[in-house]
Amino acid sequence: MSWLDSSIMRLRGAAQGRTPDTHSLTEARQGKYHYTIGPYSSPVLSVKPGDRIVIETRDAFEGAVKTEQDLPSKVLTMPFVNPQNGPILVEGAQKGDVLAVYIESMAPRGPNPRGTCAMIPQFGALTGTTLTALLSESLPEKVRKIDVDEQGVYWSKRVTLPYKPHIGTLSCSPEIDSINTLTPDAHGGNMDLPDMGPGSITYLPVQTEGGRLFIGDAHACQGDGEVCGTAVEFPSTTTIEVDLIKGWGLQWPRLENEALIMAIGSARPLEDAARIAYKELVLWMEAEFGYERWDAYMMLSQCGLVRLGNFVDPKYTVGAGISKKYLAPE
Amino acid sequence: MSWLDSSIMRLRGAAQGRTPDTHSLTEARQGKYHYTIGPYSSPVLSVKPGDRIVIETRDAFEGAVKTEQDLPSKVLTMPFVNPQNGPILVEGAQKGDVLAVYIESMAPRGPNPRGTCAMIPQFGALTGTTLTALLSESLPEKVRKIDVDEQGVYWSKRVTLPYKPHIGTLSCSPEIDSINTLTPDAHGGNMDLPDMGPGSITYLPVQTEGGRLFIGDAHACQGDGEVCGTAVEFPSTTTIEVDLIKGWGLQWPRLENEALIMAIGSARPLEDAARIAYKELVLWMEAEFGYERWDAYMMLSQCGLVRLGNFVDPKYTVGAGISKKYLAPE
Amino acid sequence: MSWLDSSIMRLRGAAQGRTPDTHSLTEARQGKYHYTIGPYSSPVLSVKPGDRIVIETRDAFEGAVKTEQDLPSKVLTMPFVNPQNGPILVEGAQKGDVLAVYIESMAPRGPNPRGTCAMIPQFGALTGTTLTALLSESLPEKVRKIDVDEQGVYWSKRVTLPYKPHIGTLSCSPEIDSINTLTPDAHGGNMDLPDMGPGSITYLPVQTEGGRLFIGDAHACQGDGEVCGTAVEFPSTTTIEVDLIKGWGLQWPRLENEALIMAIGSARPLEDAARIAYKELVLWMEAEFGYERWDAYMMLSQCGLVRLGNFVDPKYTVGAGISKKYLAPE
Amino acid sequence: MSWLDSSIMRLRGAAQGRTPDTHSLTEARQGKYHYTIGPYSSPVLSVKPGDRIVIETRDAFEGAVKTEQDLPSKVLTMPFVNPQNGPILVEGAQKGDVLAVYIESMAPRGPNPRGTCAMIPQFGALTGTTLTALLSESLPEKVRKIDVDEQGVYWSKRVTLPYKPHIGTLSCSPEIDSINTLTPDAHGGNMDLPDMGPGSITYLPVQTEGGRLFIGDAHACQGDGEVCGTAVEFPSTTTIEVDLIKGWGLQWPRLENEALIMAIGSARPLEDAARIAYKELVLWMEAEFGYERWDAYMMLSQCGLVRLGNFVDPKYTVGAGISKKYLAPE
Repeated sequence: MSWLDSSIMRLRGAAQGRTPDTHSLTEARQGKYHYTIGPYSSPVLSVKPGDRIVIETRDAFEGAVKTEQDLPSKVLTMPFVNPQNGPILVEGAQKGDVLAVYIESMAPRGPNPRGTCAMIPQFGALTGTTLTALLSESLPEKVRKIDVDEQGVYWSKRVTLPYKPHIGTLSCSPEIDSINTLTPDAHGGNMDLPDMGPGSITYLPVQTEGGRLFIGDAHACQGDGEVCGTAVEFPSTTTIEVDLIKGWGLQWPRLENEALIMAIGSARPLEDAARIAYKELVLWMEAEFGYERWDAYMMLSQCGLVRLGNFVDPKYTVGAGISKKYLAPE
Repeated sequence: MSWLDSSIMRLRGAAQGRTPDTHSLTEARQGKYHYTIGPYSSPVLSVKPGDRIVIETRDAFEGAVKTEQDLPSKVLTMPFVNPQNGPILVEGAQKGDVLAVYIESMAPRGPNPRGTCAMIPQFGALTGTTLTALLSESLPEKVRKIDVDEQGVYWSKRVTLPYKPHIGTLSCSPEIDSINTLTPDAHGGNMDLPDMGPGSITYLPVQTEGGRLFIGDAHACQGDGEVCGTAVEFPSTTTIEVDLIKGWGLQWPRLENEALIMAIGSARPLEDAARIAYKELVLWMEAEFGYERWDAYMMLSQCGLVRLGNFVDPKYTVGAGISKKYLAPE
Repeated sequence: MSWLDSSIMRLRGAAQGRTPDTHSLTEARQGKYHYTIGPYSSPVLSVKPGDRIVIETRDAFEGAVKTEQDLPSKVLTMPFVNPQNGPILVEGAQKGDVLAVYIESMAPRGPNPRGTCAMIPQFGALTGTTLTALLSESLPEKVRKIDVDEQGVYWSKRVTLPYKPHIGTLSCSPEIDSINTLTPDAHGGNMDLPDMGPGSITYLPVQTEGGRLFIGDAHACQGDGEVCGTAVEFPSTTTIEVDLIKGWGLQWPRLENEALIMAIGSARPLEDAARIAYKELVLWMEAEFGYERWDAYMMLSQCGLVRLGNFVDPKYTVGAGISKKYLAPE
Repeated sequence: MSWLDSSIMRLRGAAQGRTPDTHSLTEARQGKYHYTIGPYSSPVLSVKPGDRIVIETRDAFEGAVKTEQDLPSKVLTMPFVNPQNGPILVEGAQKGDVLAVYIESMAPRGPNPRGTCAMIPQFGALTGTTLTALLSESLPEKVRKIDVDEQGVYWSKRVTLPYKPHIGTLSCSPEIDSINTLTPDAHGGNMDLPDMGPGSITYLPVQTEGGRLFIGDAHACQGDGEVCGTAVEFPSTTTIEVDLIKGWGLQWPRLENEALIMAIGSARPLEDAARIAYKELVLWMEAEFGYERWDAYMMLSQCGLVRLGNFVDPKYTVGAGISKKYLAPE
């Protein structure tokens, strides 16, 4: 039996063993990709709880950076970056519900070098930016094109990195805001959490009819913090399963995999992102795992797991988790 | 001769002495007020550069807090707060231009007690919030209803505060984002700068056709920082004059009055808001007032003026200014 | 009658009309200046509550920057900057008490150009620093030497700035820490608040026997935030009056002048400095001016005054004040 | 062959295979423990590079919290907490050198329940504190006493946590500051990094003659961030080996173990701590591992490892690391 069978998604999802349909969201079917996450765009697909969707995501540069000479400042026009597939409606989803997104697999698409990493002016953690606004000169603009396959990320002659694909941007629509795809927030967005790969389930608060799921920004691998501003961005075929948990009423995204549960916060400064994540985790342990509040708080001080998503975007993302072995009932 | 005649608006605006039309944007004409600033709503008015508009703004609670027993958590539904008039199109405005908004006058509307101040759960500077997320109990929820007229703000038997009206939220639409009206950013938004009252001109970057001006959130007075989370919020009749400066290409809002010029930044943490404001001011002095960059930077270290807008909202606002007496040509 | 006669210092100080002695703390008497504020150095002077002290302060570069060719990175050795006079013992001062420091006058010393302003590598608000650590190149290093007298600060042919002297660094010793003179904190330190000039009284928490007062870092003028990292630093003859308030038990410094009272906080990020200042002000109004806590909090949201000290040092400083006209008893 | 033989300590340390002496620093020999890290206290021991020291550390409450009824606010007097052993002089250490501290083993001392965890008023990540100053009530004050042995940390009937001992506070003296033992900074201090346990080497910048090593604050285990403010604090017998690397000239602490190298930054806000750590790591890879600067920066964006130390102290600590497998020469 897979751990999935005892996941929150399987235990509480609306699908309940229903035979899933599989949908295909190709580039052609998607047509126009989206640069904001919001309630104002037209759905491309409507699915039932439990359905599978095979999605062709574009890379964060929408394929415009083809060679190491294609500087982002030349070939991109802000804010038209990080294109998203969707919105996908899930039947029955309403404000106060939660969408569960299980990532089944992620495969590279297109010819090599498929992977792109760039240093972009006024972007990244170790440079002045539009928000940490300085009078210093920008760092040099640079592009790296990288061969990627399911065996590895061929960074350089010296270094091959492991292929650890994950989704950088995953969202339900906010209720009234329409948020650019560079920004993470309570709706999900550009969280850049390496945990959000195959074998993970992300839980997203639903704010609008159908939830309006957006997905994109596949990474072949990424370090904690995404320090230079970009991961190994690549076009992918990502297969997900979507389920619906009625009335869960989350305020912020959460994540589950075989080993742990995690609450996710996005804010600035970075300590506020960590506060959100840990507070949500304490309240989760109290509400659903039989922990007294202060016992949970003090115990996480001994065994809490923190994962830094990005600290380069307009808001920063932190996940706070706990191993499932400490959640088994007494 | 008024200082206005030598303002940037008058010198560089498209109106150029054209006889203005006066438009009226009553509650009835506005109809539905807006809770996001963005490109997706329908214009209520189109004006020419130089035109005057007499606007009936609603208070930030949209009139729902009528007595001190009307607790915000009971009578309001988030995120439907801080209603805005608009969007107003300005003919000829295009991306890369700037709207100039001169506030001519602000008069109170409606029966007293017109003014409302509230302590709202999880909101304000000296409490845990949704972003500075803590496990502490909220502060008590409280409402103050306050008589307001053009002679004063009658806070208590002990204290009458001066009537110093200003606009808390003033914006052009972002290009693709639609941003809730509680958040300030590069588009303007909920800046809560007490300087933005009668006698001031605010310059806003245009990102979309017509600029799409939004205005609301009148305050009868406000301290630096708006520490408890709300000012003396009141319904107003606000009269503005709008002009258009072609091709100015600002990244962030700016402000001018008789005494000073000011650049405005909004971000978190608060030092980033201050960095934006000061950087913009240095570059402004270099570009338009004949200062060498490092001379401007070092001189502002001796005579720069900082005004704190709010540090209670999802982003914080800081204005950095310099007295006009130091800007006269050599 | 001067406002001083109704100041907290005069009403509650231990001097109580005692005829003051006047002490002289010349460069010669001071001997070795200090680069940390702490309990481990030897006192240079012991005074009684109410005494006057005439102090020869050195500039923050200890006179080593004599010409515009004397680059700080060449002529200074970190951390030996911002030299302080003191420590001065006040008889009877014990942990839990407060020293009151009234600044009577500040006169320039030494030959012109007495004033020095510098852009120092890795220092200032609009550059990467040792704490906001970036990979960007430093801004250019620059020195300005400026003529200063009591009529003005002769910044350039174009601009004369007003002479508005104040003390940048004023402290009692912490209980056990010894803190470098660049850092402000609860003990006072390098607050760089332009309000701390002649006509102001600063109240400092006493942590050690005698209080151990340190003073230095005179500025001929300074803008809000001290954005480039330095003010117009100059050697001064500063005359102060020191009094002792027994048992006041402050946690953070406070300031009083004819117009207002102010609480001062120093921390990072900047919003934390503002939180400290406003919290201390609310509690002060409650404890000593007959305000109910939430009334004070809501009213400061309408009339609070914020002054930014520095946001360039290892910690940032904010003062939160209220006009005395709102403090008169009902 | 152990990885230690190829560690930086062994390759570059002054010991060079010298037969070590073993010193014993018992409670009795230590006598008075220290609450600040600085140059003003008297050494308790002088050792040669390569020597071993067996140290009896006290817990962070100095043993005063003996039962769950001993509330910290009753039995402790701030700032006299987190007592440190030392200072220990290392012969030949001078400003510009680096001390290497290899932790060989950590064993619990004293009778059970040896472990102590507490929620302390105005302390911890999810409450208002003295720096994030709020008007909210404190969280309840709580103490947990926990049995600890080398097999486990017996948190509750439900949960046994693994025994993962590490040192919370490890420092060389700053040059002139004397810093309380709750604060981490460039000298080391209260970093609370779970990686700093047996099998790790910490490299600390030397600022004063002999380095003046301080050590204390043993934790039986700790989660990332130490969210409630305290770990499972316990008295330990910690055995270390100390070596000296001449002229390495570090600005911030670094760490090495079998799997990775890590640079450590401590600052506020939390993103500044992460910036310091990643900047130091980039420069380290450039200086000593043959990476071009921008290649290192971009590659860390794909494989950098971030560990959160504490985000509860006056400054927060972040480690940024890279797996040693990527450091092997081409």
